[in-house]
Amino acid sequence: MITTIGFDADDTLWHNESIFAAAHEKYRALLGRWHDAATIDRRLFATEMRNLELYGYGIKAHALSCIETAIELTDGDIRAAEIREIIASAQAMLAHPVELLDGVAEVVPRLARTYPLLLITKGDLRDQERKLAKSGLAQHFAHTEIVAEKNVETYARVLHRLQIRPEQFLMVGNSLKSDILPALDLGAAAALVPYHLLWQGEEVAPLPVPTGRFAQLPTLRELPALVDRLNASG
Amino acid sequence: MITTIGFDADDTLWHNESIFAAAHEKYRALLGRWHDAATIDRRLFATEMRNLELYGYGIKAHALSCIETAIELTDGDIRAAEIREIIASAQAMLAHPVELLDGVAEVVPRLARTYPLLLITKGDLRDQERKLAKSGLAQHFAHTEIVAEKNVETYARVLHRLQIRPEQFLMVGNSLKSDILPALDLGAAAALVPYHLLWQGEEVAPLPVPTGRFAQLPTLRELPALVDRLNASG
Repeated sequence: MITTIGFDADDTLWHNESIFAAAHEKYRALLGRWHDAATIDRRLFATEMRNLELYGYGIKAHALSCIETAIELTDGDIRAAEIREIIASAQAMLAHPVELLDGVAEVVPRLARTYPLLLITKGDLRDQERKLAKSGLAQHFAHTEIVAEKNVETYARVLHRLQIRPEQFLMVGNSLKSDILPALDLGAAAALVPYHLLWQGEEVAPLPVPTGRFAQLPTLRELPALVDRLNASG
Repeated sequence: MITTIGFDADDTLWHNESIFAAAHEKYRALLGRWHDAATIDRRLFATEMRNLELYGYGIKAHALSCIETAIELTDGDIRAAEIREIIASAQAMLAHPVELLDGVAEVVPRLARTYPLLLITKGDLRDQERKLAKSGLAQHFAHTEIVAEKNVETYARVLHRLQIRPEQFLMVGNSLKSDILPALDLGAAAALVPYHLLWQGEEVAPLPVPTGRFAQLPTLRELPALVDRLNASG
């Protein structure tokens, strides 16, 4: 019996990776005098992975890694004005409007009438709070958890604190690695709603996932029917 | 009757502003060819305040504002290698050892035996979690709340979620603005333990604060006696 539903935020409720993709396009153009796109992408990702433990996720971390990579890739030839463009791009990303994904504006309020909804997202504290406020969805979530990393321990801690048993919990998100596998590991149900873009840092090898407690949905519109089905069989 | 004690983290449990001060010293030296220290400080603070809503608090936000200010103050003449030094300085700050303040190692475990302790801190999610882990104090705190801003609404939300009445709560911290005044506004008790440095962004005009529910202590060593006193009179 599902009594509580958790949602990831970025690329589950609203567009995010598309904003990063557009910024990466500009970044590649900025460094195009020095390197091809594949080299730039590879080196930026390597910098991001190297800094992940120290920086965590989010746009500020990304901007600092972009600057560091640009200096490395140009052997220090990049001009300050070009670095200023990277900062301006990060600021534009932070100020970007929140655009809800298909079905979200209908499905979230509808489910909130029956179930307490949790928002469980990683990233930058202020940026995630701001996006939730701008989304117009804040009042539908009983609790918001902005966490440094989304693994089994994180979900266990959040559910324990709210006194929710994993069997009663359904997690919904676009990332197998961060939303689905840890929730299933814990004994919760999980619904994957893929976004058309996935950051390389979220990629995992396709894994067999238990059926029954797991479903993949094309959009969030199919979620209420899945919840009904889980509760009819449970 | 005080039943729960909340602690600020930076400059209350461990040194923080001193690490920023050392980084500022290096930053001034880096820009010394172009400007005097007072101009650099003033312009950096102006950039930080302009970016605060977008960036929030923490070392990554600070680093991005340092880079932006350096480009402005040098009219773009600063070299990429010098910007790399600002990034290296931020990374060193993030990796800096956690040094507990006087009395903390004794007082926190001692109070934790009698009272549930909360850690309520603002700043960067991953950085604050890492510092708590490195501090060796994590096991003494019943709950940790890393928040985007510390105002009356924040304290009200945290206390409500944990079902603590403000009259039963004592907040301990080094910032009148973030730790003391909002807690007193809410009806909680508050103990100010000043640190010898205070970031300009935390400065408030000295305000009359109600006596009885407020005390200023030279170090955390005096906290257990204050708690006893509050509970004897309450």
